[in-house]
Amino acid sequence: MVNVEAILQGDRRALAQLLTLVENDDPRGAEALDQLFPHTGKAHLVGITGSPGTGKSSLANQLAKVYRKPGDGSAPRRVAVVAVDPSSPFTGGAILGDRVRMRDLSGDPGVFIRSMASRGALGGIARATAAVVQVLDAAGYEMILIETVGAGQTEVDIAKLAHTTIVVEAPGLGDDIQAIKAGILEIADILVVNKADLPGAENTMRALRASLELAHPVRHLDSLKAGHAGSMKTTDISQAEDDLWLPPILLTESPRAVGIVEVTQAIARHADYLHRSGEWEQREQNRLRSELDALIQAQLVARWRNSVPPSAYDQALEALYNHQISPQQAAGNLVKEQ
Amino acid sequence: MVNVEAILQGDRRALAQLLTLVENDDPRGAEALDQLFPHTGKAHLVGITGSPGTGKSSLANQLAKVYRKPGDGSAPRRVAVVAVDPSSPFTGGAILGDRVRMRDLSGDPGVFIRSMASRGALGGIARATAAVVQVLDAAGYEMILIETVGAGQTEVDIAKLAHTTIVVEAPGLGDDIQAIKAGILEIADILVVNKADLPGAENTMRALRASLELAHPVRHLDSLKAGHAGSMKTTDISQAEDDLWLPPILLTESPRAVGIVEVTQAIARHADYLHRSGEWEQREQNRLRSELDALIQAQLVARWRNSVPPSAYDQALEALYNHQISPQQAAGNLVKEQ
Repeated sequence: MVNVEAILQGDRRALAQLLTLVENDDPRGAEALDQLFPHTGKAHLVGITGSPGTGKSSLANQLAKVYRKPGDGSAPRRVAVVAVDPSSPFTGGAILGDRVRMRDLSGDPGVFIRSMASRGALGGIARATAAVVQVLDAAGYEMILIETVGAGQTEVDIAKLAHTTIVVEAPGLGDDIQAIKAGILEIADILVVNKADLPGAENTMRALRASLELAHPVRHLDSLKAGHAGSMKTTDISQAEDDLWLPPILLTESPRAVGIVEVTQAIARHADYLHRSGEWEQREQNRLRSELDALIQAQLVARWRNSVPPSAYDQALEALYNHQISPQQAAGNLVKEQ
Repeated sequence: MVNVEAILQGDRRALAQLLTLVENDDPRGAEALDQLFPHTGKAHLVGITGSPGTGKSSLANQLAKVYRKPGDGSAPRRVAVVAVDPSSPFTGGAILGDRVRMRDLSGDPGVFIRSMASRGALGGIARATAAVVQVLDAAGYEMILIETVGAGQTEVDIAKLAHTTIVVEAPGLGDDIQAIKAGILEIADILVVNKADLPGAENTMRALRASLELAHPVRHLDSLKAGHAGSMKTTDISQAEDDLWLPPILLTESPRAVGIVEVTQAIARHADYLHRSGEWEQREQNRLRSELDALIQAQLVARWRNSVPPSAYDQALEALYNHQISPQQAAGNLVKEQ
């Protein structure tokens, strides 16, 4: 039995134990999450994504530091960092390495860092991340930074969890091509060119700006559909307007903490925009709805698996292997078995 | 009613029409596929994947030409090219552009080219591609080249369709990082460094070789598990050995058709290896099994959706939005409704 009360009161050990249960799909984790769920919905979820080598982890580190010691006299905020690596086992080392860099945060009780590795089923990691984030939200972490590597479908799925998605680029990684390739700009609320001291930062910025301009008509159309017509005055896409969010492009040097405060300010402005426009609620609802749909699907499959004898599945498979029936027919027969 | 007989007899128009039905998930498409399925299982499915700018399409084009006019006196083979772009709507243009490059093949009745764009649901494109490939297989295309952009989960899913997966790299795209990032080397049966005339080709090759060496212990271990112990003599990973396939790295310049014949030879060697080792059948079965599982899942969800009133779903959603029940609880209640 998980001590839900302890987690609500900030017990880090109980929290870490519950996260492990949740990650492992343990029923005790699901049960605790049911109890914690009414306490969620308060955190600002910030996705941070980008290719390896862009310095995402270092950026997350610096953002956490600013949230802990805001320079503007505001109250420090509790920060959780969730690092997700859905790709190959080979990259596991990188995330561990990154964690070492976060050492200077580890003594602070207002910071909680969690690494998640890929395990098993497709879609599983996104679902597990959603659950982990809910636990951290209930536990009172106000800023939850969700760090993902790369730009595949899984990252896009994880980005959908976030209220604000930061896409990090760095000079010299062929970013212009990568950004366009992955359609990752479409999920970016804030663009950061990190390692801005390296040669080529200007080029990277220019490439991003050009890609954004390409993406611009679509965003404009969306805003028209949503009833925000007539407000777009110019094609200046580097700043937010009153009733339309246009992703700013910010330069940072995360190891030297250059430009980090500006990123936190952009995150705050984005939160304001989301609340003002009603998009915050919209994103929350979309997220919960996707999560519900994924869980319904998983439960339907589990129920079906429990009620259809393995021998029926094996026979259908055999007929399929022998090209006697099509996959569609085999699936139809098996579904009817239930 | 689809004229299945016409398709089996090589009618291109009937084929194109059926592919559209299949792509649109039209029941007439599914029905025709049921009839065609016993005629499948003959084609060699070759996946070609890599970042934009690597010249994948041009390579596919040249491979098709060699298959149509083999220099070694063997009979020409019927070739289909399926170009899949699961990423953003923005990249649609690129694929169309690529198709223009294939113009010189379009008069040949032994070649069929089909572009597929992403539409709708996650997983949908991989499922649609599987169905399209089955139709082409039944229609008698012996070599089916499946071209995908990038290295996300969708590409990996599509690669799972193929018997042989070719990963294409090109100098100067930060490939070393990209390859490692995406774990894409793990799916490569053949590596091609295209645009080998560009500066940096040597570097790209070296980076690939280093990555392969990293991946090597795992492959070796796999081969040990599979009972192929003791055959690995050296760490020379650039060529296939008798009972273990180690991905060759080949240099090509696809616009000038340099190195293309060597790629077709590697594809043929890989087919031999797959048949000899029993992996061909294994891959076929894995593929059919994945497809069956995906279809069962889709049908379970469809059946559930038809039997649970939308109002029940909406009420659960409302309670979820208000944080009264957790996603897990909401899903449980809705699944029980059926």
